[in-house]
Amino acid sequence: MADNKEQEHVSYQDIVEAEQRIRPEARVTPLLCSEVLDRISGRRVFLKPETLQRTGSFKFRGAYNRLQLIPEGERSAGVVACSSGNHAQGVAAAAGLLGMQATIVMPQDAPATKIERTKALGAEVVLYDRDQQDRDQIAKDLCAKRGATLVHPYEDTGIVAGQGTAGLEMVTQMRAQGVVPDAVLCCTGGGGLSSGVAIGVEHGFANTVLVTCEPEGFDDYARSLAKGERVANKRFGGSVCDAVLTPTPGKISFDILKDRRVASVVVSDEEALRAVAFAFTELKLVVEPGGAVALAAVLFDRLPAEMRSVAVVLSGGNVDADVMAKALSLPPIA
Amino acid sequence: MADNKEQEHVSYQDIVEAEQRIRPEARVTPLLCSEVLDRISGRRVFLKPETLQRTGSFKFRGAYNRLQLIPEGERSAGVVACSSGNHAQGVAAAAGLLGMQATIVMPQDAPATKIERTKALGAEVVLYDRDQQDRDQIAKDLCAKRGATLVHPYEDTGIVAGQGTAGLEMVTQMRAQGVVPDAVLCCTGGGGLSSGVAIGVEHGFANTVLVTCEPEGFDDYARSLAKGERVANKRFGGSVCDAVLTPTPGKISFDILKDRRVASVVVSDEEALRAVAFAFTELKLVVEPGGAVALAAVLFDRLPAEMRSVAVVLSGGNVDADVMAKALSLPPIA
Repeated sequence: MADNKEQEHVSYQDIVEAEQRIRPEARVTPLLCSEVLDRISGRRVFLKPETLQRTGSFKFRGAYNRLQLIPEGERSAGVVACSSGNHAQGVAAAAGLLGMQATIVMPQDAPATKIERTKALGAEVVLYDRDQQDRDQIAKDLCAKRGATLVHPYEDTGIVAGQGTAGLEMVTQMRAQGVVPDAVLCCTGGGGLSSGVAIGVEHGFANTVLVTCEPEGFDDYARSLAKGERVANKRFGGSVCDAVLTPTPGKISFDILKDRRVASVVVSDEEALRAVAFAFTELKLVVEPGGAVALAAVLFDRLPAEMRSVAVVLSGGNVDADVMAKALSLPPIA
Repeated sequence: MADNKEQEHVSYQDIVEAEQRIRPEARVTPLLCSEVLDRISGRRVFLKPETLQRTGSFKFRGAYNRLQLIPEGERSAGVVACSSGNHAQGVAAAAGLLGMQATIVMPQDAPATKIERTKALGAEVVLYDRDQQDRDQIAKDLCAKRGATLVHPYEDTGIVAGQGTAGLEMVTQMRAQGVVPDAVLCCTGGGGLSSGVAIGVEHGFANTVLVTCEPEGFDDYARSLAKGERVANKRFGGSVCDAVLTPTPGKISFDILKDRRVASVVVSDEEALRAVAFAFTELKLVVEPGGAVALAAVLFDRLPAEMRSVAVVLSGGNVDADVMAKALSLPPIA
């Protein structure tokens, strides 16, 4: 539990209100299980496939909640967001539902499927060069010119509260099965999902540990939580897990997570890809590498033995065909 | 409704009992929806992803029900089944749960993933040459030699009743959403799924039409239902939809379906493959071509306009990587 609640910007009640706000447009994603996964991991594993959420990732939850918080009078100026693709689609879809114009600043090396799908949802896409241009400056300039609202992917309480609705659903679904999980695993970039789910879950399961799961080289949460302050990654790109590559933990999310029951694990890019292949072959689910990091943590036994019963969020499924082909060419997990 | 119920071998009560028998080992698969699919199809579509069933297809339902009907004293001699792969896995998994030995006669050109997964479930696999050998004779010889029970993929009332449990779940799930579907679409080979689901669904929704969905060249149900008697396909193979290629409708299933509210549609192999790609890209579900035939029927508008609200069973997801790559190389559905 947090020692200094006054520093927090997101409450359980905020998540409850977000859930009411995003219905019925957001889907209640199911809770799945697999006896093969249980056998391999030696645990009881519950999967929350946010891949099946509208737009193919959990990001629609936060975006649709956040955009409804924009005052009516400011909506006609539209929204601007920076994203490699999942937040992009979430914002684009939410804007479409609310009759707003969305402009998304995306890196030109974002997965093709994410760029195409964002455009298909009606958004204007502005591409930039990761090495040469500052995406935040591009976004700020667009907002200034148009009077549009900037929608940050995680440094925003409305976004975090929206992502937390996945945690509320998990509590309801696991209670219905009579299960109290020892841990909930989230793929972690800026931490919007992890921090929102932590608040959503702790209200139902006070002793459940939130486990941040990151790819090697992007273990900023693992190191920041160990150190007690936010530290940065050395790299900005170069991992196949594009969905979870952020320079540092978000301030809001880190503040939420640092005093809670949290653990951190790290997997390699190859382990994430082999988890993608496992999801395809065994679970029949399309999961992108960044969305399979938490699954990889279970498959490659990164958890302490006492975590017998765990819930894993499969956070996104927007993967290009060539990445899936590469994943399927790797040695299968026994 | 059937005019001559006395000829039927499967009752609604049989399906209710099957459902009790297969719990808790069989999964209750979720009911999913997609606003993109609704928009493309111009209908309200509900998806029943049996891809998420244990072993990756609905076949586990029938197999696990059927094997429990084998008297205790006959179980030690094991079971024998012929299958291109989904029934194989269903039987193998069910046998494993009951401590029985399963031997599966599979064509040597079955998808590699299906052969591997059947072996991984502990079954003995006997491969045969479709052009040179008679699989039924091989199976009969094995049964005679070992005293094993032959488990036919659809010419068996215990199998049909088990498959019907998918229909019971759909009724419960659609009622919870306040929906009465105009039609339920099933991928159809021998007809075990279609006939079981027809009985399971009609008890809840008396006016709902069961639509058999077949690949071109294997439209034996469409032609048999039109003619009022079972007719055969000209070919035995040569479609990518391996899961639904049978020489004729099953006798039990055809008798069940012929007097009911049934319609029939046919799609091309390419349409099935493009539906596989749509499921991957848009639904984030791994579906095999034979399991995507009913989805293709919706995507390519094979239904009368008055079927506004339809349920589609995605019957299996055991697809090889090269087939998925081929599907993803085709032009996407707008």
